[in-house]
Amino acid sequence: MNRRSDCPITCTLDLIGDKWTLVVLRDLLYLNKTRFEEFLASPEKISSSVLTDRLHKLERAGLIQKSQYSSHRLRMSYSPTERGKTLAPVLNEIVKWGRKNFDDTVPPTGFPHPLTRS
Amino acid sequence: MNRRSDCPITCTLDLIGDKWTLVVLRDLLYLNKTRFEEFLASPEKISSSVLTDRLHKLERAGLIQKSQYSSHRLRMSYSPTERGKTLAPVLNEIVKWGRKNFDDTVPPTGFPHPLTRS
Repeated sequence: MNRRSDCPITCTLDLIGDKWTLVVLRDLLYLNKTRFEEFLASPEKISSSVLTDRLHKLERAGLIQKSQYSSHRLRMSYSPTERGKTLAPVLNEIVKWGRKNFDDTVPPTGFPHPLTRS
Repeated sequence: MNRRSDCPITCTLDLIGDKWTLVVLRDLLYLNKTRFEEFLASPEKISSSVLTDRLHKLERAGLIQKSQYSSHRLRMSYSPTERGKTLAPVLNEIVKWGRKNFDDTVPPTGFPHPLTRS
């Protein structure tokens, strides 16, 4: 991937800087979703094509891994790698900021810390 | 803004989930840039139209404020609001992650903590 600059913010945004990648990672890290259909069922209603693209991107970056869970060739299961799990602190800060700045938002099930809005 | 869901991650990404918004905020928070031309001069080479869009978006969200610094109507100066500054912890975690995951990245000048790559 060509870098826009040597800034760690820019490089990270080239990987996760969009509206969907961290939503998929949320499903993997906090909601324990593993299957394509489970990601599609999230309330944000990601499209199949965007989901396919983001799963490929996350896999190429070594942030998730896939495995076949049945003999059907399309029955893949996805899980975060150890490297993928290291994005949790970024997600945590985003959850905290979102809770403080958007009324009536609900942290993901399984989010590690009970958060107050203060 | 219509919400995609009540998840604080999703709501936050609807505001900052793209490749440029946090780059502009980096320039404001860490590099003390204030003027349109200064943002254009960053190594990522943001286009004028994208920069205009992101500055408007950040201003509408109450994350930055603008003021006129000369009598010329286009001579505007931009600065982060108190609310905008509360995004620093999100940026900090992104800097840390980027430093660990992309070789030879250099944290922004003025970044608050000296960071090792370990």
